[in-house]
Amino acid sequence: MIKDLWLIGIGTGSPAHVTLEGMQALREAAIILLPLKGDDKQDLAALRYAILEAAGSDAEIRTFTYPERDPALPYGARVSAWHDEIARRWIAALGPETPPGPVALMVWGDPALYDSTLRIARRLTPCPRLRVVPGITAVQALTAAHAIPLNTVDGPIRVTTGRQLRSHGFPQDEETLVVMLDGACSFRDLDPAGLHIWWGAYLGSEAQLLRAGPLADTAADITATRAEARARHGWIMDTYLLRRSPA
Amino acid sequence: MIKDLWLIGIGTGSPAHVTLEGMQALREAAIILLPLKGDDKQDLAALRYAILEAAGSDAEIRTFTYPERDPALPYGARVSAWHDEIARRWIAALGPETPPGPVALMVWGDPALYDSTLRIARRLTPCPRLRVVPGITAVQALTAAHAIPLNTVDGPIRVTTGRQLRSHGFPQDEETLVVMLDGACSFRDLDPAGLHIWWGAYLGSEAQLLRAGPLADTAADITATRAEARARHGWIMDTYLLRRSPA
Ligand SMILES: C[S@@+](CC[C@H](N)C(=O)[O-])C[C@H]1O[C@@H](n2cnc3c(N)ncnc32)[C@H](O)[C@@H]1O
Ligand SMILES: C[S@@+](CC[C@H](N)C(=O)[O-])C[C@H]1O[C@@H](n2cnc3c(N)ncnc32)[C@H](O)[C@@H]1O
Repeated sequence: MIKDLWLIGIGTGSPAHVTLEGMQALREAAIILLPLKGDDKQDLAALRYAILEAAGSDAEIRTFTYPERDPALPYGARVSAWHDEIARRWIAALGPETPPGPVALMVWGDPALYDSTLRIARRLTPCPRLRVVPGITAVQALTAAHAIPLNTVDGPIRVTTGRQLRSHGFPQDEETLVVMLDGACSFRDLDPAGLHIWWGAYLGSEAQLLRAGPLADTAADITATRAEARARHGWIMDTYLLRRSPA
Repeated sequence: MIKDLWLIGIGTGSPAHVTLEGMQALREAAIILLPLKGDDKQDLAALRYAILEAAGSDAEIRTFTYPERDPALPYGARVSAWHDEIARRWIAALGPETPPGPVALMVWGDPALYDSTLRIARRLTPCPRLRVVPGITAVQALTAAHAIPLNTVDGPIRVTTGRQLRSHGFPQDEETLVVMLDGACSFRDLDPAGLHIWWGAYLGSEAQLLRAGPLADTAADITATRAEARARHGWIMDTYLLRRSPA
């Protein structure tokens, strides 16, 4: 039975993204649940260990592996079954004894943004006391790296996924769109007229890549850069901001 | 002439929101430009000093005051004239000598989100080398405090202002709306059917206030709580997330 579960946002690639609150929480946790990814993402596992060392945490580490998603299920049911199974694996990794103190998970970026850890945590019975420590998101790492504002003056911002962009496009009345979770360079499907893009991959880390310009002039370069980097690293995470210039 | 200008996000009320990168930047800056607000916001000035002390920064402090906005001008021109005047005041505060190292500004939350510092910096001639250090936003402080996800599974998010909400409402096809810069409890103008609200004020600080529930049941309480807290503190900053339940 987990009494206290802490979801600690660790930022998106730089150990220096972690907040003082995050560092202290890592020190105060009794157990840290760490995912073992496929070996394509060893870089990310190494970063987690580097952060723990920088924090001076002597929490006990318990690892778990992510299950496969069942491609036979429809999208919603597939995600839901996957969350259930991850919750079971957390419990299995902790074993039968009651943890001697808070159990913590190191969550990429901020735990609220396109991350399932909170949803998985809510499946535990009884539900532990949850604490969320905010972390720097890929959106912030992107705007910081390009030194640009996220919004226009008083303007709204829309954050969405590649999947959503492919089905809904870039609404004509929208000014600023941030796209995450896009494995398909879906910006290529848009009419580039009047659109500007700021793109970033491996944001916050030493491998960081940045491109910016009118979408018409930069889409091909970004697509090629992304493919090349992905092949070289074995994985990639990228995010971009699209802005419609006032006509 | 400023060679290097650093915009350092400091989070939204807790010194522990600052990242390791932010702390180090505060130590490495030669000069810190600090705004003197009206005495209603002494709490915020005190927080900035507390962060500088925690960072162990011995940067020189130069203060400036914010000009008034000219109510006679239309919105766009008014904002633009205000930015110009702030840029002049930064320069005046620095005096004629070239700063001996990076000049830094401590920016509330994240410098990219509804903040004018970047736009003001771009008015300086010659434009200094800009560095942006991301910080925890009020949006993240809100979702962390309520331990809720920002998005639904794969769902888009819209971040907007009170002003925008008043003119455009909560679009029927939108699921998640985050509202900032709303001095008027504009959620009261919405049809509350099917809407849930998570509200927070003074997020991250000891004065933090939280309310959540169906909008129909909570709007009056939030409005009263906000008015009372505002009168007591002399100022308030609040943010809320609205979610439309699937019908
Ligand atoms: C599962 S979501 C997690 C987001 C994370 N919780 C956050 O707050 O940024 C993964 C997506 O975030 C974005 N992302 C995360 N880290 C990134 C990085 N270092 N560089 C660029 N994009 C990143 C990419 O769009 C990626 O597809
Ligand atoms: C000028 S904007 C600055 C936003 C800031 N750059 C950020 O990243 O959060 C000010 C608005 O941010 C929100 N805000 C900032 N700090 C807050 C806090 N501690 N609690 C609640 N809302 C806050 C409020 O909506 C406020 O009107």
